[in-house]
Amino acid sequence: MFKFEVLKADGKARRGRLYTPHGVIETPVFMPVGTQGTVKAMIHKLLEDIGTQIILGNTYHLYLRPGLEVIESAGGLHNFIGWKKPILTDSGGFQVFSLAKDRLKDGRSKVKVEEDGVYFKDHLAGDTHFFTPEFVIKAQEIFGSDIIMPLDECVEYPTTYAYAKSALERTLRWLDRSIKAKTREDQVLFGIVQGAFFEDLRRESALRTMERELFGYAIGGLSVGEPKEIMIEMAQLVCEELPWEKPRYLMGVGMPEDLLMAIGVGVDMFDCVAPTRMARTGTLFTSQGKLNIRKEIYKKDFSPPDPECDCYTCQNFSRAYLRHLFHAEEISAYILNTIHNLHFYHRLMEGARKAIEEGNFDSYRKGWLERLSVAVG
Amino acid sequence: MFKFEVLKADGKARRGRLYTPHGVIETPVFMPVGTQGTVKAMIHKLLEDIGTQIILGNTYHLYLRPGLEVIESAGGLHNFIGWKKPILTDSGGFQVFSLAKDRLKDGRSKVKVEEDGVYFKDHLAGDTHFFTPEFVIKAQEIFGSDIIMPLDECVEYPTTYAYAKSALERTLRWLDRSIKAKTREDQVLFGIVQGAFFEDLRRESALRTMERELFGYAIGGLSVGEPKEIMIEMAQLVCEELPWEKPRYLMGVGMPEDLLMAIGVGVDMFDCVAPTRMARTGTLFTSQGKLNIRKEIYKKDFSPPDPECDCYTCQNFSRAYLRHLFHAEEISAYILNTIHNLHFYHRLMEGARKAIEEGNFDSYRKGWLERLSVAVG
Ligand SMILES: [Zn+2]
Ligand SMILES: [Zn+2]
Repeated sequence: MFKFEVLKADGKARRGRLYTPHGVIETPVFMPVGTQGTVKAMIHKLLEDIGTQIILGNTYHLYLRPGLEVIESAGGLHNFIGWKKPILTDSGGFQVFSLAKDRLKDGRSKVKVEEDGVYFKDHLAGDTHFFTPEFVIKAQEIFGSDIIMPLDECVEYPTTYAYAKSALERTLRWLDRSIKAKTREDQVLFGIVQGAFFEDLRRESALRTMERELFGYAIGGLSVGEPKEIMIEMAQLVCEELPWEKPRYLMGVGMPEDLLMAIGVGVDMFDCVAPTRMARTGTLFTSQGKLNIRKEIYKKDFSPPDPECDCYTCQNFSRAYLRHLFHAEEISAYILNTIHNLHFYHRLMEGARKAIEEGNFDSYRKGWLERLSVAVG
Repeated sequence: MFKFEVLKADGKARRGRLYTPHGVIETPVFMPVGTQGTVKAMIHKLLEDIGTQIILGNTYHLYLRPGLEVIESAGGLHNFIGWKKPILTDSGGFQVFSLAKDRLKDGRSKVKVEEDGVYFKDHLAGDTHFFTPEFVIKAQEIFGSDIIMPLDECVEYPTTYAYAKSALERTLRWLDRSIKAKTREDQVLFGIVQGAFFEDLRRESALRTMERELFGYAIGGLSVGEPKEIMIEMAQLVCEELPWEKPRYLMGVGMPEDLLMAIGVGVDMFDCVAPTRMARTGTLFTSQGKLNIRKEIYKKDFSPPDPECDCYTCQNFSRAYLRHLFHAEEISAYILNTIHNLHFYHRLMEGARKAIEEGNFDSYRKGWLERLSVAVG
């Protein structure tokens, strides 16, 4: 039912294939984020049109709204949201620990971590909830998502060695409880490598997570504010330790250049809100760099957003029209920008897959890194 | 290039066909409103999927944003917005006179009507503009829309006989100036019948407007707050006067039951923001009446919004999912609701066309009026 195979390698870059009960995923793959059971400003058929292979769901958000009971009544997340392809759900760990930055009026944290689990006050009504590793597995078993993630303790950048070490240990203990709690055979669990930005802790976390027999391994705790070089360095040394035959998922990363760099060190799977979020603020990723569609210079620019792009948006609409829609606050601005950005990410991954197959990933990456470093306007 | 033919009649109801340079329109037709060059919460290909034949553009809004200069540089509205089918643009008269309800801080009106034209302060920056009949034709010639409308003087409900009479006269004088100003051969101008809610004024306006040789006739100044019976009564007596062989367009109307009633008295064309606006507030038109998707009762209702509907939304998603998306403030809620509502309107018109062809429009209308009078929840 589940299988992962590395079809071809080009240096450390891998061209793989991941089989799930809801379909096959060609890797490297970018997974659009569908936080609340929908990718923002998209509907499923538009995602299908651009070749989306798998979407993400967020346990934290779906637990709050519509709630586990609704999704269970619907017969799982696929049924509830009407998405027929694979779904990966996260554990909620990242969202919960992100809440720790916010403070209550009396100065107390919204999050309290104990060995058993984590207490937190949600971002909606401010109610208190308690997530344990077992509960998070249970929630994802209710979802029935193809790929599920264990609760982990995320740390900020920068952090102390002692705290990073303790979070690493807790993440491993929680992983063991997650493995024990898991009952469904039609889902696979990934382990999450932590260790913050300490080389030895990252290697230790990778090696000790690998001791657990898991379908795949995720690299967590990156892209939290550190310089890009450090992020790639950490991803690289983790990938060096991870077993070749298992898929590797770099969580929450990133910009197009980050994806290319990370593929180069051996990562297979990515998710990030960047293409969808930036679409809604008017930033388009193009073959000539980033383009800010809000700008006055596009007022009478009737050329397509990206002349090299064959997405619906670029094939039918101009920069001037997208600029107008954006300033007129039309929903179609968000839809059309999102179609383009996700299409761009998917085509970038498609190109990477082809380049690896043909053994020229290095020049593919170099060519794109040059183009992406330019801001069109 | 332009032609209108009544293919079949069933009582006063007409099944027609309108030929334009951008394609053929089967009537009776509902025209979705694309105020700012886009139908709200839709993209063109979704409109094409549900069989939209023609969309509306608003001269007032397009003049303000992106402005005539941009649309002229683009080579017209079709080019600018990338819509290949017919477009009808209004004159801005209705929007401008709607502004008269708002007051400036010092109590003065935002609108000042003179014989030459109308001064108004816009709803965006509050700048002062001046629309004349000639300018409004000029603007629509820049747009290159297939069907264009002359500037008219709209009156509120209720109004005095004297004011209605004077507005009727001014509308006729402005119509003559519009006819004189028109230069393009690839657009057709409709006359607008006014006369408020006075039977003799309505008949007079219809007869005197018909004296001008125009491609079609619109019925303006209705659906401004009057009871539905009065609206239909006015539409009926105007249609009784209008020439059989010309298309009739009831402006700004309306709810599904209004459309059916108006088809029954001989109207061919409709536009209204109801299906798109109500979609964005969570109201769905269904074969069992109106459905408020926000309600708690739909929390675990996994049936389609309308079990008889074959739109993308109803074929793939449940009431529970749409309710969740709406409460989660997801853009996809607006998209999916809008797809359904416009599809519903288009299928209602398609059914009306078929019923007229088959000579059973009366029972079609009766059947729908019964179903539509029920609120599902
Ligand atoms: Zn594109
Ligand atoms: Zn439907």
